[in-house]
Amino acid sequence: MVDEQLKRFRSSIDNIDAAMILLLAERFKIIKDISDYKLEHGLPPMDPEREQEQIARLRQLASTADLDPAFSEAFLRFVIAEVIRRYESAVDRP
Amino acid sequence: MVDEQLKRFRSSIDNIDAAMILLLAERFKIIKDISDYKLEHGLPPMDPEREQEQIARLRQLASTADLDPAFSEAFLRFVIAEVIRRYESAVDRP
Repeated sequence: MVDEQLKRFRSSIDNIDAAMILLLAERFKIIKDISDYKLEHGLPPMDPEREQEQIARLRQLASTADLDPAFSEAFLRFVIAEVIRRYESAVDRP
Repeated sequence: MVDEQLKRFRSSIDNIDAAMILLLAERFKIIKDISDYKLEHGLPPMDPEREQEQIARLRQLASTADLDPAFSEAFLRFVIAEVIRRYESAVDRP
């Protein structure tokens, strides 16, 4: 049997995870729009300079929120890797 | 020069990423509380059954939000791996 305090903690974790999943869903919708827009306007799919700026900004934000900046960077890289994976599998498809 | 439409898209991505970083910061605070609470009450640090429930729930939520369920699972596993890494390095420390 799980005790009441542990249940409360877990309910908060579940709410936060649900919020993050919904934000990720929204993020991928916008990424799809960006990807279509870039294709339409002949813009390169990736922009390493932009990526560096995003990482620097999130590391800074993580610091102020008391989150390990290295984790925030790993997190963004994880999400970007998924974006690239989807882009590549979309391009491979005829 | 980045065009205005691309700037708008990117600003949305930046807002979403900032929100996720703040949620992650909050999540890790609660994980710290859970970890302290479990230690104090002699509860085991990990709970594989709970983890399976979390994954199933997030996959379901991802489906309804039009996000790839496999990605939502990979995302949760990524976050849990970080939790375990922190737990282990905390235990290793004297």
